Amino acid sequence: MKIAVLGGDGFVGWPTVLHLSDKGHEVHIIDNLSRRWIDTELGVQSLTPMDSIQERCRIWHDLTGRKLAFHLIDIAKEYDRLRDWLRDARPDAVIHFAEQRAAPYSMKSDRHKNYTVNNNVSGTHNLLNALVETGIDAHLVHLGTMGVYGYSSVGAAIPEGYLDVEIENLEGEKKGLEILYPTRPGSIYHMTKSLDQILFQFYAQNDGLRITDLHQGIVWGTHTDQTRRHDQLINRFDYDGDYGTVLNRFLIQAAIDYPLTVHGTGGQTRAFIHLQDSVRCIELALNDAPEAGDRVKIFNQMTETHRVRDLAEMIARLTGAKVAYLPNPRKEAAENDLIVKNDQFLALGLNPITLAEGLLSEVVDVAKKYAHRIDRKRVPAVSAWTRDIAARVETDPEGTRLKSVS
Amino acid sequence: MKIAVLGGDGFVGWPTVLHLSDKGHEVHIIDNLSRRWIDTELGVQSLTPMDSIQERCRIWHDLTGRKLAFHLIDIAKEYDRLRDWLRDARPDAVIHFAEQRAAPYSMKSDRHKNYTVNNNVSGTHNLLNALVETGIDAHLVHLGTMGVYGYSSVGAAIPEGYLDVEIENLEGEKKGLEILYPTRPGSIYHMTKSLDQILFQFYAQNDGLRITDLHQGIVWGTHTDQTRRHDQLINRFDYDGDYGTVLNRFLIQAAIDYPLTVHGTGGQTRAFIHLQDSVRCIELALNDAPEAGDRVKIFNQMTETHRVRDLAEMIARLTGAKVAYLPNPRKEAAENDLIVKNDQFLALGLNPITLAEGLLSEVVDVAKKYAHRIDRKRVPAVSAWTRDIAARVETDPEGTRLKSVS
Repeated sequence: MKIAVLGGDGFVGWPTVLHLSDKGHEVHIIDNLSRRWIDTELGVQSLTPMDSIQERCRIWHDLTGRKLAFHLIDIAKEYDRLRDWLRDARPDAVIHFAEQRAAPYSMKSDRHKNYTVNNNVSGTHNLLNALVETGIDAHLVHLGTMGVYGYSSVGAAIPEGYLDVEIENLEGEKKGLEILYPTRPGSIYHMTKSLDQILFQFYAQNDGLRITDLHQGIVWGTHTDQTRRHDQLINRFDYDGDYGTVLNRFLIQAAIDYPLTVHGTGGQTRAFIHLQDSVRCIELALNDAPEAGDRVKIFNQMTETHRVRDLAEMIARLTGAKVAYLPNPRKEAAENDLIVKNDQFLALGLNPITLAEGLLSEVVDVAKKYAHRIDRKRVPAVSAWTRDIAARVETDPEGTRLKSVS
Repeated sequence: MKIAVLGGDGFVGWPTVLHLSDKGHEVHIIDNLSRRWIDTELGVQSLTPMDSIQERCRIWHDLTGRKLAFHLIDIAKEYDRLRDWLRDARPDAVIHFAEQRAAPYSMKSDRHKNYTVNNNVSGTHNLLNALVETGIDAHLVHLGTMGVYGYSSVGAAIPEGYLDVEIENLEGEKKGLEILYPTRPGSIYHMTKSLDQILFQFYAQNDGLRITDLHQGIVWGTHTDQTRRHDQLINRFDYDGDYGTVLNRFLIQAAIDYPLTVHGTGGQTRAFIHLQDSVRCIELALNDAPEAGDRVKIFNQMTETHRVRDLAEMIARLTGAKVAYLPNPRKEAAENDLIVKNDQFLALGLNPITLAEGLLSEVVDVAKKYAHRIDRKRVPAVSAWTRDIAARVETDPEGTRLKSVS
């Protein structure tokens, strides 16, 4: 298959590119390299030393003989170039990672809110629009998030995308109606993925586009079978308060003898998936494309759920790290349950990697190896969800931890 | 009250400005005048001769002694200017009309799709973002559309914004959950209003913004009590296939001896409201603001529903016009029922103007007075919803009617 990976230079994008190239597909990376620019903006860097995308592609080619093509296109701002590229290249599938993907970054300031909305909505819409305009019938696989649903569930399992509801008609009869499972996003970032759902629903219905939307949990881990094969193929690994995600951050904090930073009570339950499973799921979804005219196919791409404080305590036991309970900069429920169905990927043959698999210590080993590259001041999560929260919570002068000032 | 009317130069915006100014409010018009630019782009013009917004404001001031301020700001592209204006002016309420509002225009080409999405999403989001950033606690009243719900109902009345559903939890108990009434938009334009709903839900929940969303039916009529007061206060009146709306178009077609153009079987049922009621409803909604922390208040702003062919036949009887059944350029259900609740406005005292009120002939009179300004070639609706439909349906060489070429 000829596959375009939009955002193929990113944290999950790059391992996906290598995984699919390794399987023999012709892979094209389209990326505006915005994630590298944001590193520069924030003055942080990946814990792991990352080469340029061009250099990474060269190493992969030297190692495997397989070519990776890189195209510098901003899909949010360069509609014409994206459309023309699709028209000329005619990929069989497009995997769409090309969105700003950090909730804390999306909440930093009014500028960051606007950037996230405009970048994510325009990028996704330009892509859909260009697929219709070129008429190429590529299968679109999009990376969404479990977070669109919010976390105030009624104790029911979150189904895979759709909900059957009953509506009483004028004659008093109950009529069944299938709807998109209602979203209740908790950040600007999550909100953009909820907007994406509406865009997909429209373009599948009006134009018969074939679309798969993967509602992913929090990705942990850093290596895949392919990134392990050469030092310069190493994946990016974020530890900062904006882009680092909870489990990976705990493992890094443990590696550098920094207290594991739990926000609030740690009663938040979240869904997780290992990076290796993430790229496998994407391949499974690619090979299970909907037909033109089908509704959007939606998968829950996660393998287990955990409460944040349980994760922290598990890693504390494993590593001897301390746990610090800090004020929560997010506006969210202090405690929530979360049950998620992932029957479709299991039926397609996914054999999940769980936290018990020994890969936790691999992540700690990576973190220890590159610990000298960590700026401890960038570890705290400081983006506050509202002005009131910002006024109550601030970083202390040493920047090593948050404190409550209320 | 100090009120900002975003899009105050438009078809419903302008009469709203006059209505609120007449009631003694201090009204500020913010508009980028994009609707006038689109007239230029399409090479069509309002049937009624419209003065510049500055001239209209001057006439109103001469007539009534009331000042209207006009500010040329593009809310989609000039976030900083919008935010600074709000910070300095500190309005008590903001009425948001400033979106591209024609479904056929939004479907004309890939460029028009992108324009509509980017303009409408960025404009609405910039406004919400600026309201949070300035902290001014203005009540936001937004003009949405009944069309977000699509037209494949299960025969139940569409409630005002929310639906109670039951979800079975893991213990097998039914738990109630209130959700936004599910949307199923049928055009890019309608889709953007569905996206707006998600933006509003987030900002009300996260930041306590006080938001009212008015899901409006198709507006008919052209005069209000204020626009009648001077020739140069006349409202815009669109007859072309993109911006003209169905009932007004029938009345104009009848006035110029053009067959009433029904697309498909005319079995589409739609919701309607007279322009005078529309501005009254906006005033009622303004005075019934939600509290900070409330969910978004949603009204169905319509007064009656009609099947398109019934409207055409009624107007044919009234005027002697012929009815032409043409291929439908839209992708939509051929026939649908539509029942809509509007209990909230009735409870607030709205006394609806119905089609029986004699105002139909007023519209025909306006159309006859300005009939010399009509370009008959611009009457057909030619924007096709998909490439397949475009291939089947085209305008004949004289441009007086659509024909089927299949």
